Order: sequence, then structure tokens, then C-alpha cells
Amino acid sequence: MSFSNTPTPPYYAVIFTSIKNEDTEYEKMAKQILNLVQNQPGFLGIESAREEIGISVSYWENLEAIANWKGNFEHQIAQKLGKEKFYKSYKVRICKVERDYDFIGSL
Amino acid sequence: MSFSNTPTPPYYAVIFTSIKNEDTEYEKMAKQILNLVQNQPGFLGIESAREEIGISVSYWENLEAIANWKGNFEHQIAQKLGKEKFYKSYKVRICKVERDYDFIGSL
Repeated sequence: MSFSNTPTPPYYAVIFTSIKNEDTEYEKMAKQILNLVQNQPGFLGIESAREEIGISVSYWENLEAIANWKGNFEHQIAQKLGKEKFYKSYKVRICKVERDYDFIGSL
Repeated sequence: MSFSNTPTPPYYAVIFTSIKNEDTEYEKMAKQILNLVQNQPGFLGIESAREEIGISVSYWENLEAIANWKGNFEHQIAQKLGKEKFYKSYKVRICKVERDYDFIGSL
């Protein structure tokens, strides 16, 4: 995994922070959703890490693309399972990325 | 660690994604910076996790608070060490949080 190769701002970010339940089927579902989101129109990239809490930041061209992803049929099923089984709690923040910069060290 | 108890939007988020070098002094510096940021005016909270990449999202009242933190003297020293020692690469994204919602499961 590397950083998402996002375009020049503005673009959008969805910050999804979560606390998981123990559930063996979670990984399988997470992999399916990752495959699905990558084919979603307007999707720009995703960055994820989990320790005590999980943080997944997905990047999007615009708010319409985010709304379409939220309404995607298979994603809706995953959202339902997320509430019933996979997550103790989560928080979703919809953001407009206004500015970005990076540092790439010498190799 | 739990989710940051952020106010009703709008507020701001700084998404800091990074790939670390191996360095034994990193943890000490990270702890110092975490103490420092929590006393910064306009700071609302921080959420962090690291696997292959590290993601730290800090939340702020406004852009001025973010600029003040970037210019903080001790933070500037940390930023310099970050480039020289601690990070292979990083990316910073400054975002306006426009909307948020959460799910809290039954206990």
C-alpha cells in the first residue's frame, strides 16, 4: 500500500473511523468492499490503517460520487452488516480537501 | 483511544499519511508532539493508526489554528527531524469537514 495518487485540490475525502467487533467474516467483507469501491465512478483512492481504532480515508472527485457510493446496493448490504455485526461504533466525516503537499525523501 | 469528540461541522481536518523509517527515537518524539498539539489553541482532537502506512487525522476549529500549529517552534523542529530521520515520505491534506454522522451500537 502507498499513498493515494490524488489530483490537485479541490477534491473530497471521506474519513471513516471505526471500532470493530471480533468477527471472522469481517476480513472477507472488507476485501469485497475494497474491490467494489475501486470500480466506483469518481473514486480516487483509499488509505487505511487499524490499531485501537481503524481509519480509512477514501478520496473522491465530488460529492455526487460519494452519494452514489453510499447508495450502491452491495455497499448498502455491507453497511447493514457493519451495524449488525462488524462495528461497535463508527464515525463518518465528509470533507473537502482544499490544499495538500508532500515530502518524498531521498531513496 | 476513542473517536475525537468534534463539534457540529464545519470544522477542519488535517490528514497526515506517512511511511516511517526504522528509528528508535521516533516513539519518544511522537509522544512529545502529541502532548504539545493537545495544548494548541483551536485543537479539537486526533485519531491515529499505523500498519503499512500511518494515518493521523487531527481536527481543528479553523485554518488559522492549523497555520499556527505548523509554525509552532517545537513542531518546526519535529518537522525538520521528520524529514531528516523519521519519515521515508509523507503527505498532508488540509480539509474542511462539511458533514459528519456516526453509529454507536448497543453495548
